[in-house]
Amino acid sequence: MEIKLVKNILDVNDKLAEENKTLFRENKVTAINIIGSPGSGKTTLLLKTIEALKDELNIQVIEGDIASSIDAETISKKDVEVVQINTEGECHLDANMIKQALKNLDLKPGLLFVENVGNLVCPAEFEIGEDFKVAVLSIPEGHDKPYKYPLIFSKAKAVVVTKSDLLPYIDFDMNAFRSGLASLNQDCRVFVLSAKTGEGMQEWIDWLRQIRP
Amino acid sequence: MEIKLVKNILDVNDKLAEENKTLFRENKVTAINIIGSPGSGKTTLLLKTIEALKDELNIQVIEGDIASSIDAETISKKDVEVVQINTEGECHLDANMIKQALKNLDLKPGLLFVENVGNLVCPAEFEIGEDFKVAVLSIPEGHDKPYKYPLIFSKAKAVVVTKSDLLPYIDFDMNAFRSGLASLNQDCRVFVLSAKTGEGMQEWIDWLRQIRP
Repeated sequence: MEIKLVKNILDVNDKLAEENKTLFRENKVTAINIIGSPGSGKTTLLLKTIEALKDELNIQVIEGDIASSIDAETISKKDVEVVQINTEGECHLDANMIKQALKNLDLKPGLLFVENVGNLVCPAEFEIGEDFKVAVLSIPEGHDKPYKYPLIFSKAKAVVVTKSDLLPYIDFDMNAFRSGLASLNQDCRVFVLSAKTGEGMQEWIDWLRQIRP
Repeated sequence: MEIKLVKNILDVNDKLAEENKTLFRENKVTAINIIGSPGSGKTTLLLKTIEALKDELNIQVIEGDIASSIDAETISKKDVEVVQINTEGECHLDANMIKQALKNLDLKPGLLFVENVGNLVCPAEFEIGEDFKVAVLSIPEGHDKPYKYPLIFSKAKAVVVTKSDLLPYIDFDMNAFRSGLASLNQDCRVFVLSAKTGEGMQEWIDWLRQIRP
């Protein structure tokens, strides 16, 4: 009984996700669902990415947070269109939330970044119509995360390893991380970068330039 | 209809949590539910806490992970009794999981640490019969987390701010963090420490020495 209901919820979600995806296709939008723990550096990555790309590509943003509009306010200072979703307790974005948010967004050909709620677990389960999931893992979180939180690492098109400027101060075994990830997902791109210092950003930006659904 | 079901699940959970709590009382166990993001340093904090206290207090541990038994293996090297719960996808521990785990633990008077699944969101919603919740927030996650993830910070008896050795390399506004926390929870103790260097550990250990249900 319980299982049926959960399946039903996920079926409804997947249907709405397909509708969102159709909308993205019609408007030539590449939608990227950014998933990572609280404080992994999703917003800072996004800010620097916008700075690097906004003169050549149209960028729009949907910000997901349980509470507050801190991130949306920061993003809007970059003069890109941003819609804030407050989930009011919910631990992830779902397709219906995105559908509602899209009513407030005049989609234009280019990139749509969806910053999910800070949570490495639940957002991985909910399709929102995105073309790609990108996982964000910060160096301080440690190299063992693919072993402990396999779902997101198995589904991600790319993993951005952030805060590489902290590598000298932290025991992060990059080889262990890469083997853990490879055991789940052989086609996943890995970018190691610091949005703060700019180190490694170029490769990520170049990837975004050419990535299409 | 949906809401009813969720309420029902939480009611059942709360009933089982009460049963766990009774068991803790009967066995003179103080149960502490440790909640924090992936990589916030919960396990390292626990390891150093065990080292500091195990000669004077009986310590037992329940390790919650979605997958793997990496943490339980590390903990068991400290010669304390540890039970691993693998939630197999679930994003939090619930009271029933703890009830089952307790069947494999011969409760002794002292401290029981329950390390929850790495997730700052969902574990805060589920009572497991604990006496106290302790939130773990690492310096690299940033000072704005109480604003963004209010539930856990409103329910915690204490917040342990970990990885203080990284303060020189990170923009973490301690005053902003403390005001954010105080706006939600005025009685919450705050410990700022580095389990790696030992800085600040003593105050936390002293608090654990005297904390009782």
